[in-house]
Amino acid sequence: MKQSQLFSKTSRQVSADEVSINAKLLTQAGFIDKQMAGVYSYLPLGYKVFKKIEQIIREEMDVIGGEEMIMTALQPKELWEATGRWETTENIMYKCEDKNGPTVGLAWTHEEAVTAIAKRFISSYRDLPRSVYQLQTKFRNEPRAKSGILRTREFVMKDLYSFHANEADLDKYYEIVKQAYLKVFKRCGLKALVVEASGGAFTKKYSHEFQVITEAGEDYIVYCPVCGYAQNRDVAQAKAGESCPACGQEKLQEAKCVEVGNIFKLGTKFSESLKLYYTDEAGEPKPVVMASYGIGPGRVMGTIVEVHNDAAGIIWPAAVAPFAVHLLSLGESSEIVGQTVSLYNELTQKGVEVLYDDRTESAGVKLKDADLLGMPWRIVVSEKTANKYELKARASRTAELISHSELMNKFSVQ
Amino acid sequence: MKQSQLFSKTSRQVSADEVSINAKLLTQAGFIDKQMAGVYSYLPLGYKVFKKIEQIIREEMDVIGGEEMIMTALQPKELWEATGRWETTENIMYKCEDKNGPTVGLAWTHEEAVTAIAKRFISSYRDLPRSVYQLQTKFRNEPRAKSGILRTREFVMKDLYSFHANEADLDKYYEIVKQAYLKVFKRCGLKALVVEASGGAFTKKYSHEFQVITEAGEDYIVYCPVCGYAQNRDVAQAKAGESCPACGQEKLQEAKCVEVGNIFKLGTKFSESLKLYYTDEAGEPKPVVMASYGIGPGRVMGTIVEVHNDAAGIIWPAAVAPFAVHLLSLGESSEIVGQTVSLYNELTQKGVEVLYDDRTESAGVKLKDADLLGMPWRIVVSEKTANKYELKARASRTAELISHSELMNKFSVQ
Repeated sequence: MKQSQLFSKTSRQVSADEVSINAKLLTQAGFIDKQMAGVYSYLPLGYKVFKKIEQIIREEMDVIGGEEMIMTALQPKELWEATGRWETTENIMYKCEDKNGPTVGLAWTHEEAVTAIAKRFISSYRDLPRSVYQLQTKFRNEPRAKSGILRTREFVMKDLYSFHANEADLDKYYEIVKQAYLKVFKRCGLKALVVEASGGAFTKKYSHEFQVITEAGEDYIVYCPVCGYAQNRDVAQAKAGESCPACGQEKLQEAKCVEVGNIFKLGTKFSESLKLYYTDEAGEPKPVVMASYGIGPGRVMGTIVEVHNDAAGIIWPAAVAPFAVHLLSLGESSEIVGQTVSLYNELTQKGVEVLYDDRTESAGVKLKDADLLGMPWRIVVSEKTANKYELKARASRTAELISHSELMNKFSVQ
Repeated sequence: MKQSQLFSKTSRQVSADEVSINAKLLTQAGFIDKQMAGVYSYLPLGYKVFKKIEQIIREEMDVIGGEEMIMTALQPKELWEATGRWETTENIMYKCEDKNGPTVGLAWTHEEAVTAIAKRFISSYRDLPRSVYQLQTKFRNEPRAKSGILRTREFVMKDLYSFHANEADLDKYYEIVKQAYLKVFKRCGLKALVVEASGGAFTKKYSHEFQVITEAGEDYIVYCPVCGYAQNRDVAQAKAGESCPACGQEKLQEAKCVEVGNIFKLGTKFSESLKLYYTDEAGEPKPVVMASYGIGPGRVMGTIVEVHNDAAGIIWPAAVAPFAVHLLSLGESSEIVGQTVSLYNELTQKGVEVLYDDRTESAGVKLKDADLLGMPWRIVVSEKTANKYELKARASRTAELISHSELMNKFSVQ
């Protein structure tokens, strides 16, 4: 794409009320726009990143047998009253008057909705196990909205729900999802630790959070730097000394981190409240055993920026970058422009995603913008490069001058 | 995919409060689930159709230079007060109390939001024209919700917004979008007429609706069956006799139809209200000239069902069908099952999307379900077909017995 045609532009300033690194950089680079506190639009460049993260999640959920569907934000009061969550979650659930009937709520999670739908289709042991997921917009009346896109009042969540005949079958699938989650975060360029957390009201077992260590985080974990074993601070304090890492290391460390995902055994809480029963092999009715598993692609995107940046801007991991290559022509001579346009066409035809800075801006502006936007590779064509090309990885300090054929080899596999 | 693993099942009955054909068939086939009046979840099979329609729209919007982004459902009161629409659209806008500040609204359209964002980036004639679009969930406090997924209170809208220096440039792009819309509907298997409608408060020119003739519709048009020239009934009555079709035909017909899209010149209404000005070549400030263009993929899906069905079920056009082929094994002998599994693997490896009915159900149930679900092609393997395969198009009454190699040729290009 030609940068002169792009809807967004970079900006040097950013509103003083943005305090987080992710909001500052993403706003300056023209990736997001703040509609109000904790509510952000994703502009074309930002939405490219967002969709790549969604697609990575989708692929890994499909591999483990998840079927994609989409449920609704608007929710009826009576459904949530049946599980007791219409009142208990008063503080975070948005509610609207409806001219057609009782007050409606905006979903911040979908255990109620998915359980009610599953009642249409699950009635026998033959109908189990099942797993369904969605990438759907949720709402949360969130008072603390100071962390850019890490904590927002409107956000897409990938929520997967699984249904099982018994706990043993759930336990097996739970481990499969855990591994799928680690693949998702790895593909997104994040090192996530699997952290033991409280199971809450539903189960005596641990739930698990996926935490990425960064100063931007609001969570604290205790972990072993040798084997990676980790607990969140609450669990660590409650169980002090009880559960040492398997590696035998005794010197645990504490760190701030961002929770990028969680997996949670629900047991029979929702199936009993909403009467999702199945008939087992012996003809006996049994409540379905459930679990839910969440990842917020927006929070993943914000965490990537928090972890992968320097003083000059963002450094996108290749798998989620809006474009693989930022191509800059420095100088307006017809030779330079011609050489650049020709390279742009060649790379684009090979399927390489290229952002071509064709603007009539100074070299300084173009180089600064390239650093801010953070594409993995920068290619410069100028008088100085003669018939060669200056190639530089965004993450590296040094550039190299390479020939046309070397460049084509470099980007031969896409 | 194996049908025994599918989350949804077909059902013979459907709730008596579903009166529309689309809601009845899509519910029975397990494509959608009603959360409440006018609010539907899309189940895995239904969401496959929905995503294919979205992808067709996305491709055609990308071709005409639209950049995809996504704006927010939550909207601040002050932004809509600036255009006077906080109060005037009282009846259709959901509003929520927000613990952090003033009441927030749920967007049912995004002219305000996109104009406010454009102010960040458009300030000179060099920044024009631009066009951006989104596939985003909107909310509408809709009293009449009796038409299944044709008219809902929560729905995805593809809304494109374009920004121009003057009306001549807008007029040119408006025609380009019109042609792109016709391509979208054609690819989705719909014959849409371009219908002149009132320009409303914003312009003296016509806006245009894309209408598909069906008894399920709530709109009325007057059209010429020879040349396709059409006006909606209001315009036709107001302008009676003034604007005859170019073909000279005088006998116009009236028909009920569903509006699957609309395109609308906004002029400078929003740019003046929200102060989106640009500096022209002469250095003069001018308001940006805008237009908006909508398609609801859910309404498109409902219209497809209304138009393409028979007494036995849905007849999906190939481009939007959840699977290209419904493969049925009738009989449980190891020969038949083996032959079917082997064909399933072969077709799947070729990239053909196959739903394989591997359930232990009677032939009658399997054949009935195949008709209800409506995949374009049905392949049956049974004792009767011997080493051949019975191939039948869902839209056709007759089946043919063909050999393995003929079948492979048939599905060679995907």
